[in-house]
Amino acid sequence: MTSSYKRLDKDNAAVLMVDHQAGLLSLVRDIDPDRFKNNVLALADLAKYFKLPTILTTSFETGPNGPLVPELKALFPDAPYIARPGQINAWDNEDFVKAIKATGKKQLIIAGVVTEVCVAFPALSALAEGFDVFVVTDASGTFNELTRESAWHRMTAQGAQLMTWFGLACELHRDWRNDIEGLGTLFSNHIPDYRNLMTSYSTLANSK
Amino acid sequence: MTSSYKRLDKDNAAVLMVDHQAGLLSLVRDIDPDRFKNNVLALADLAKYFKLPTILTTSFETGPNGPLVPELKALFPDAPYIARPGQINAWDNEDFVKAIKATGKKQLIIAGVVTEVCVAFPALSALAEGFDVFVVTDASGTFNELTRESAWHRMTAQGAQLMTWFGLACELHRDWRNDIEGLGTLFSNHIPDYRNLMTSYSTLANSK
Amino acid sequence: MTSSYKRLDKDNAAVLMVDHQAGLLSLVRDIDPDRFKNNVLALADLAKYFKLPTILTTSFETGPNGPLVPELKALFPDAPYIARPGQINAWDNEDFVKAIKATGKKQLIIAGVVTEVCVAFPALSALAEGFDVFVVTDASGTFNELTRESAWHRMTAQGAQLMTWFGLACELHRDWRNDIEGLGTLFSNHIPDYRNLMTSYSTLANSK
Amino acid sequence: MTSSYKRLDKDNAAVLMVDHQAGLLSLVRDIDPDRFKNNVLALADLAKYFKLPTILTTSFETGPNGPLVPELKALFPDAPYIARPGQINAWDNEDFVKAIKATGKKQLIIAGVVTEVCVAFPALSALAEGFDVFVVTDASGTFNELTRESAWHRMTAQGAQLMTWFGLACELHRDWRNDIEGLGTLFSNHIPDYRNLMTSYSTLANSK
Amino acid sequence: MTSSYKRLDKDNAAVLMVDHQAGLLSLVRDIDPDRFKNNVLALADLAKYFKLPTILTTSFETGPNGPLVPELKALFPDAPYIARPGQINAWDNEDFVKAIKATGKKQLIIAGVVTEVCVAFPALSALAEGFDVFVVTDASGTFNELTRESAWHRMTAQGAQLMTWFGLACELHRDWRNDIEGLGTLFSNHIPDYRNLMTSYSTLANSK
Amino acid sequence: MTSSYKRLDKDNAAVLMVDHQAGLLSLVRDIDPDRFKNNVLALADLAKYFKLPTILTTSFETGPNGPLVPELKALFPDAPYIARPGQINAWDNEDFVKAIKATGKKQLIIAGVVTEVCVAFPALSALAEGFDVFVVTDASGTFNELTRESAWHRMTAQGAQLMTWFGLACELHRDWRNDIEGLGTLFSNHIPDYRNLMTSYSTLANSK
Amino acid sequence: MTSSYKRLDKDNAAVLMVDHQAGLLSLVRDIDPDRFKNNVLALADLAKYFKLPTILTTSFETGPNGPLVPELKALFPDAPYIARPGQINAWDNEDFVKAIKATGKKQLIIAGVVTEVCVAFPALSALAEGFDVFVVTDASGTFNELTRESAWHRMTAQGAQLMTWFGLACELHRDWRNDIEGLGTLFSNHIPDYRNLMTSYSTLANSK
Amino acid sequence: MTSSYKRLDKDNAAVLMVDHQAGLLSLVRDIDPDRFKNNVLALADLAKYFKLPTILTTSFETGPNGPLVPELKALFPDAPYIARPGQINAWDNEDFVKAIKATGKKQLIIAGVVTEVCVAFPALSALAEGFDVFVVTDASGTFNELTRESAWHRMTAQGAQLMTWFGLACELHRDWRNDIEGLGTLFSNHIPDYRNLMTSYSTLANSK
Repeated sequence: MTSSYKRLDKDNAAVLMVDHQAGLLSLVRDIDPDRFKNNVLALADLAKYFKLPTILTTSFETGPNGPLVPELKALFPDAPYIARPGQINAWDNEDFVKAIKATGKKQLIIAGVVTEVCVAFPALSALAEGFDVFVVTDASGTFNELTRESAWHRMTAQGAQLMTWFGLACELHRDWRNDIEGLGTLFSNHIPDYRNLMTSYSTLANSK
Repeated sequence: MTSSYKRLDKDNAAVLMVDHQAGLLSLVRDIDPDRFKNNVLALADLAKYFKLPTILTTSFETGPNGPLVPELKALFPDAPYIARPGQINAWDNEDFVKAIKATGKKQLIIAGVVTEVCVAFPALSALAEGFDVFVVTDASGTFNELTRESAWHRMTAQGAQLMTWFGLACELHRDWRNDIEGLGTLFSNHIPDYRNLMTSYSTLANSK
Repeated sequence: MTSSYKRLDKDNAAVLMVDHQAGLLSLVRDIDPDRFKNNVLALADLAKYFKLPTILTTSFETGPNGPLVPELKALFPDAPYIARPGQINAWDNEDFVKAIKATGKKQLIIAGVVTEVCVAFPALSALAEGFDVFVVTDASGTFNELTRESAWHRMTAQGAQLMTWFGLACELHRDWRNDIEGLGTLFSNHIPDYRNLMTSYSTLANSK
Repeated sequence: MTSSYKRLDKDNAAVLMVDHQAGLLSLVRDIDPDRFKNNVLALADLAKYFKLPTILTTSFETGPNGPLVPELKALFPDAPYIARPGQINAWDNEDFVKAIKATGKKQLIIAGVVTEVCVAFPALSALAEGFDVFVVTDASGTFNELTRESAWHRMTAQGAQLMTWFGLACELHRDWRNDIEGLGTLFSNHIPDYRNLMTSYSTLANSK
Repeated sequence: MTSSYKRLDKDNAAVLMVDHQAGLLSLVRDIDPDRFKNNVLALADLAKYFKLPTILTTSFETGPNGPLVPELKALFPDAPYIARPGQINAWDNEDFVKAIKATGKKQLIIAGVVTEVCVAFPALSALAEGFDVFVVTDASGTFNELTRESAWHRMTAQGAQLMTWFGLACELHRDWRNDIEGLGTLFSNHIPDYRNLMTSYSTLANSK
Repeated sequence: MTSSYKRLDKDNAAVLMVDHQAGLLSLVRDIDPDRFKNNVLALADLAKYFKLPTILTTSFETGPNGPLVPELKALFPDAPYIARPGQINAWDNEDFVKAIKATGKKQLIIAGVVTEVCVAFPALSALAEGFDVFVVTDASGTFNELTRESAWHRMTAQGAQLMTWFGLACELHRDWRNDIEGLGTLFSNHIPDYRNLMTSYSTLANSK
Repeated sequence: MTSSYKRLDKDNAAVLMVDHQAGLLSLVRDIDPDRFKNNVLALADLAKYFKLPTILTTSFETGPNGPLVPELKALFPDAPYIARPGQINAWDNEDFVKAIKATGKKQLIIAGVVTEVCVAFPALSALAEGFDVFVVTDASGTFNELTRESAWHRMTAQGAQLMTWFGLACELHRDWRNDIEGLGTLFSNHIPDYRNLMTSYSTLANSK
Repeated sequence: MTSSYKRLDKDNAAVLMVDHQAGLLSLVRDIDPDRFKNNVLALADLAKYFKLPTILTTSFETGPNGPLVPELKALFPDAPYIARPGQINAWDNEDFVKAIKATGKKQLIIAGVVTEVCVAFPALSALAEGFDVFVVTDASGTFNELTRESAWHRMTAQGAQLMTWFGLACELHRDWRNDIEGLGTLFSNHIPDYRNLMTSYSTLANSK
């Protein structure tokens, strides 16, 4: 096996947020709700921060699945927003695929609810069309750990890479010197332990 | 590695339910009994719903392994039913393989008790003969997590895909518009959280 | 300490089901949904089976908390049903307490969502008025284990007894000979392992 | 609160083994089966070793609950054996209570399946009649941890003491010098870690 | 035992927040950081919402323990703030006790880091002086679960009541009609599942 | 990927038991001691039952690692027994490899303590020489789950198959009719749940 | 219930370390070995630091139980050291009780292996004689959590207080100003998180 | 697939310790702090013991990430020490790569904090340049298990091998006879269970 490092490149990456809807979120039981809410918002904030083209999609949002969580709508007012009329695999929706192709990016960062369907199906479709796929494991949720692991097996077997929002941010940023304050703020807002480090540090540094 | 998405197709899939017998079920300790019972019945209901050819088989059902759980017998009164006289790997039983080949399907959905034997053995045999194999991880049970993970490694190394009944249903259905009520009923009957969403939704919608 | 066995007596017990509403159920994360749904229905079935006076109550059922789960409404069409206009502690609602006192029973079996509020508050109020209180721990749910344990400490410190539906059924029934089939059916419908034992037993017994 | 140490005394203790039946054992899911089997046999062996009067009882052993596990029958061929015709609380069976009182012992060591019923009910009855009760927590099993903890709360609130077979053995034996080999053999047969210590020790000691 | 319900009364309660300092928070490992941060801020928000007198205290904040987390300082700019010069048990600091007594309240709600020291010590001191003590278990953190359970045993043995911030809010509020929007906002901001219920509800209600 | 089922064949398999020594066993903390002891003896019993050539080896057995557990020595009095003078990877010991090659078998079943060293090293060596390797995951133990998972990754990446003793037994036996009683006895002695099924079955069957 | 705070007083406390022997430590499986070793040494260091009279005792140290761990022997060269000839409950050994009474202290801090025997038995004996007992829960180990919880129930029912070494240190020290460096060193040596806080703090403070 | 055993060779291996900084360590929550501290120091000790070229690097050590833990600095006073000015992936720092290439070694042993970034990024870069990479899983820490597993998937998919420090030590050492005392000391200092075995053994051996 020859190894190759498919490294995220902020000029070649787009973010797909699939079915983070108020009703569907009650199905997510493999991650604690406080943590999951934080992870999803962190992913959104980083997409914003790195100015990655972001595409929102929902499934049946006028039924029990419920509306997209309002924070996401508010963060991306101008993003392509595809309310799918019925397709379960978002990739089966032409508008969704068109929106992706319109970005011209080849690296797709995907998160969604639930992992084994709303994430895995478009991930597998994208991989089959030659895209690089990065699954945001901690901003994707599902029924339980058994389901999650099944989905991970299926996606990684086809070449999907598993990452978390923190890893994404670091790989996209490359070098702290590109913007210390920007990345620091992202971490401070979404990693309580890091926020505490920064509080202690700045308090002491400023007391000099 | 080139990626390919081996996608379930309801016109090319068959379901194999292997050794869900009343005695053997007491060996299943990697999934809570209430959840496991629900998963097995959900798989049966979806097989029925999608009209997938379904094959039942048991091992030594007149001994301590006990009879097939009556709900399965009742749901599939006309399905091929192979009470194996001794073969542990169901694929070693000619009638079982014949029944599968008679369906003309190339995608085999397999669930059973216990995972590492009743599921893994026929899965490996089917893969070696060129079938696509989809293991229903949450409708298959075994002694403990160590055993389950060992079995998963062995099967995925040969190309088996791990799915759960919910993922199967979604991939087979493709589009909600094919039958909203049918899929909704399946989910309502087997996913308490989804049932609650539907109850709240319809109560409020109807109160307008 | 002198010991006394406060034993459940089917002629002196009433059941209070507090706030098992479709919306609130999405808050329950200390018990798996399949298991929890089964436990709640098992409690309802046993209340019915033992003909215990049963009182239903809800909190704000026209808002996000959602309607009472329909199965409960259907099982107890004639039970007192108190849709509380605002009181969080059901005991603060006069109609609720009146309905309880009208039963003339001194042993109160309480279950609800969420444990630390909807169960604990009326339990503490009832204890302070001299009732015997039996908390149905497995038909009561809450956010997580830390919350549950806090609630248990608070209630047991005041004399509440913790039981599960299975223990209730056994203590109320006293002797299998009172009705073997009735109790057996209750267990078969709500304990998969017991159902399997009965299936294996009856199959073999009938094969003689 | 004045403290008193109710210490086990081998001349004043009796063992009650309640409903360790082949069918009921499949309900036990709060302890791993290998460990539970070992604990039950260890308790039986220690009852034998300390010559404690031992009473066996079963519930409906001709039905799905199944027969008493044969090892217990074989170990105590002459023990009182009460096959209860229907009473769920063994203490409701006159023969059972008579057999206990015939021993003249005031310290009752109780183990059984399932904890919240077969153990808790007679434990509470015995406490109410003034016996000292020692619950063997690791030779008693039940559906899950939630059920176990509920039962523990109920019993300890009335004064039951929770112990395991190892603690029982140590408290009954008092001093290794009473019989080093006997106690050592009991531990070697039922504690793999202790057996290994003894193997390493004796191998090295004998190599001198 | 006679039972009494020591019920929280918003006119008789004060909140003590002990040592929520940026450095000490890195010691908290019995609760996930995202959840813990949320719980602490929820407690602060509810203290504010119910206008409970609130007292802040820190231990050695100029050393490695670090400063009070800035959010708390910002929320309670006028609260008594006792930076203890060395006393580990805050109750050993006269200013702290004076500040408490100055509130005239007899119900003390205590949260802090770490549970077994910063919470348990003043809790035990307050109980010994006749105060009612309510420990906020989910806004108090410590090294691990073993430590937490030890601390809980010690405090409850002296009469402390264990609650979580959600239970506090409900018991203080008594009746939704006192202020539906206020309590709803508190829950929406700190319980993701509840926020989702409200989102789905209001979206659908508004679509009429 | 073309799939192939490397199926165990009792005429082509040998068992290697590596370093199951009394001292080293105290390092095993990823499996409960009662369960682990049972699994190791079950593997030994099945090796015996299927008459598989079995090779025992130890590392430094006269030092702190301690002697081979006596049960294994007793079960295989005539097996090649290689007390390695220092080689950590048993495959570095010529006598060990010679003993393996002398069996003429190409399928090696390996278990040992600890998994990442005593199992993984010879497994990797054997794979590199073209043997088929079956790791008995439940008769191999190590420090903790993190260590075990690391070792599994390393071995499966080179083609090792993970199985448990139960899976081995079933795959080697192929058909119950080859010897119902023999396999049944093996299961009854090492699977408490299966023993219970057999007890209930035979009691009822014999009562006819 | 009137509450009283039995507070540790360094002038009235003694430490009993019971059976921390090299062999017995292999039985401890309810705490990770790295953590347990650290906790035991932390307790020893604090006993030394606060100059608390300390008593060491062992059970059968020339047999499989093995010698006292050398670190303890080295730390307390002049402490009473009672190698018990056979008594399992150390309190049954006259020399042990004499040594305790010779200290003139009424507060006994007890740690040992295994919790339910070597700790619980002398704890219950000491409580019955009117001593205050503080069990060091994290420097006491046993077979598993079920055993630990059983032992905790038995001891707390008689008035034992559960603490950890960190709580002990804080309650004994009372005020950081008594010796900042001494307590800081104790924490730095035994709490990695605290050590890191101190490292970051002092590095930054010194860089001014 | 042809198998090859990429075996560690002490003459061809170098150790990279990445970002073990006092601040960043507070982010590590997938391993208990006592255990993690021990693992990191064990890795350092083994690097020293086997005289492997070792390279230290830090990220922003003058900010909140904090200084390198002093023990590492003290152990490797002459090692290349690259305080990176901003590169997140250490491999993006030319000095770091130069230092590695200067060793002339092709086997890179990598540990760091946090796993998915500080370990995974340079590991992937090194693999892409043809190095063999051995990730020390137990001396690398991160936020939680979900993050760790994602990182493991990504690295192993490119050929990284997962090992722990114990496995490394054994594979590097090859044969106890190369230096019994040296390896024994390493184990005794970092594996409490092994230390106990050695204590019991030598005490008994010396008593002859």
